[in-house]
Amino acid sequence: MSEHHLLFQFFAIFTAAKIFGELFSRLKMPSVIGELLAGVLLGAHCLGVISPQDSTLMSLAEMGVIFLLFYVGLEIRVKDFLSAGRTSILVGFLGAVIPFVFGYALMAFLDYPRIENLFVATALMATSVGISVRVLKDLGLIKDRVAYIILGAAVFDDVIALISLAIVKGLGHGGFNLLEIGLLLGEAVLFIWFLTFIGPRLAFKSKPLFEKIKIPEGPFVISIILCLGLSYLAETIGLAAIIGAFMAGIVIDELAGVYDLEEKVKYVNEFLLPFFFVMMGSYVDPHLFLDWDSLGLILAITLIAVLSKVIGSALAAWREGRRVALRIGVCMVPRGEVGIIVAMIGLSEGTISMPIYSVVISISILTTLVAPPLIKWAFKGK
Amino acid sequence: MSEHHLLFQFFAIFTAAKIFGELFSRLKMPSVIGELLAGVLLGAHCLGVISPQDSTLMSLAEMGVIFLLFYVGLEIRVKDFLSAGRTSILVGFLGAVIPFVFGYALMAFLDYPRIENLFVATALMATSVGISVRVLKDLGLIKDRVAYIILGAAVFDDVIALISLAIVKGLGHGGFNLLEIGLLLGEAVLFIWFLTFIGPRLAFKSKPLFEKIKIPEGPFVISIILCLGLSYLAETIGLAAIIGAFMAGIVIDELAGVYDLEEKVKYVNEFLLPFFFVMMGSYVDPHLFLDWDSLGLILAITLIAVLSKVIGSALAAWREGRRVALRIGVCMVPRGEVGIIVAMIGLSEGTISMPIYSVVISISILTTLVAPPLIKWAFKGK
Repeated sequence: MSEHHLLFQFFAIFTAAKIFGELFSRLKMPSVIGELLAGVLLGAHCLGVISPQDSTLMSLAEMGVIFLLFYVGLEIRVKDFLSAGRTSILVGFLGAVIPFVFGYALMAFLDYPRIENLFVATALMATSVGISVRVLKDLGLIKDRVAYIILGAAVFDDVIALISLAIVKGLGHGGFNLLEIGLLLGEAVLFIWFLTFIGPRLAFKSKPLFEKIKIPEGPFVISIILCLGLSYLAETIGLAAIIGAFMAGIVIDELAGVYDLEEKVKYVNEFLLPFFFVMMGSYVDPHLFLDWDSLGLILAITLIAVLSKVIGSALAAWREGRRVALRIGVCMVPRGEVGIIVAMIGLSEGTISMPIYSVVISISILTTLVAPPLIKWAFKGK
Repeated sequence: MSEHHLLFQFFAIFTAAKIFGELFSRLKMPSVIGELLAGVLLGAHCLGVISPQDSTLMSLAEMGVIFLLFYVGLEIRVKDFLSAGRTSILVGFLGAVIPFVFGYALMAFLDYPRIENLFVATALMATSVGISVRVLKDLGLIKDRVAYIILGAAVFDDVIALISLAIVKGLGHGGFNLLEIGLLLGEAVLFIWFLTFIGPRLAFKSKPLFEKIKIPEGPFVISIILCLGLSYLAETIGLAAIIGAFMAGIVIDELAGVYDLEEKVKYVNEFLLPFFFVMMGSYVDPHLFLDWDSLGLILAITLIAVLSKVIGSALAAWREGRRVALRIGVCMVPRGEVGIIVAMIGLSEGTISMPIYSVVISISILTTLVAPPLIKWAFKGK
């Protein structure tokens, strides 16, 4: 009977995610928001189709996010990124640090526990640039210098957010021990440095090995083994599994083009990813929006999230001129999967509470909704 | 910690499956056998990496087999099959019925419970023609009339085995009630008839709908929804989920070519399928092979499985001449995924015991190993 029930859940999750995704896509909003809302609807607080304690669904969701980060890693060309220029790196850096500081300050001011503040602040760091890119595409500005800068910056703030997550996660376990923080930071930097600079060379050198495999789809198989292996390794040394998955994508990067890996991983993703977004949505309690206190908190943090990102990014890009700096800042506003992942890890480790989790998910949704009109306004006259 | 452990299991299962698959591939044996043996090795009776009670791994395995049958359904062109000629259908039919009768008789003679006999007999019905096709390919005989006939026959005996499974599964639940058997048979035939003859037309008529979808990969998404939906429906009306998945493949068949669905579903499969074969292997207790009684049983049923298939198929193809009939019979010998699925369902429903499960898996392995030399012998001189 439980097996029967599970098949129904698979069907319901996938179908609801896609129907809501389609709906939002038609409303010219990102389909990811539709998938999250499908999760809210199916979740324990509404229809109750999904039970949040279901370990199978959670594992599938985790696989989904691992493959998402793997895919993102595959998409990034390290060389392009390293040559993305000082502005990109600076925008990524300040655009991550300022929201962290502002977010932490607001939460501390509101007297939340320190570890919860750190998680929320980390969740505000990474930009999800997809929606901005789509708006720029619609406006015919995808070849604009702004697009070029924000793409590089978004990658860089992802990396910063992941490092911050590794440290904050470690703090959640071990308390605020300076030595431990140092160790974790060192570990994270070493892990990322090794896999960014040595990994791809090793992968490229093992190309003859790829060619020798007799079973079908050898390169695809090896890339999945690498993804699962590095995810496990990252988790084992105290970082997050998704960091390993992301780095696996970076490592296999140069070979990805040769073997068309992106295209192939995409379909695994298409199947697994809805489970991630729907499960993430299913924890959100929509009643929070009917409660003035929590609604106030959501709006306050969203405001901080928007302002701090615009300020941080625009400051970093000041050399480009005031108007361009503002445009860059506005494009960096939307938050997305990395923030959601941070919240999920905080929740699953018991370091952030369910209401705060719901707040973070809401911020992802609201910043994404608010960005397109802001971008159109900032580019007016162009 | 359990999440951590799960990631390790994912990594270990996928990697072991592929390493053993590669190994067997190099030994010119089917890689599926390697994946099964990887499961035996990781299973509870050997290394103990996989716990058979793990509901997450079992669900992933179930998803794997659902996508396998979906893929098989996609590969089959209903029109080609219906025109495959009387010989194919007859070979499929007798080649399934005779092993069923012989298998049942042997088990009954050995005094096993009736429901267990029915499961084992059903597990002997379906041919897994992949290995034979590969051997024929190696011999340069893939365009031979024999290849043509066995491909059609293998599809047909799959369908017969699935119908038989639906009935036997119902019997396991409800006891031997003639009315119920009739009802289930009617249900199965109606389900398969409707989806084979009306389904594809409906799918083809909804093609404009496919084109209207705005989210990426619309046709792929719809095909997965159909696969999960029909699997759930089949399970709900008392058939097996895999029958629904198989029929979903048949229904979407004509559109599959247009949207390249086979190619896309393949990668989901590549990821999920190792979990199925490894989990299936993990239940096998290798100590059975050290025990004379169970080894005797395995060899006896394997002998019956080989002989009955050759006799049934060759009888059905007698019109083609004695030599061709024998060749067809020999090519039909290997059993595979359908037999394994039958055993798994029997095991999970508690109607067959763990030793009998191991016996059925062993038969799949042994018949597959025995076929290639038999085929080469039968085609000698050609």
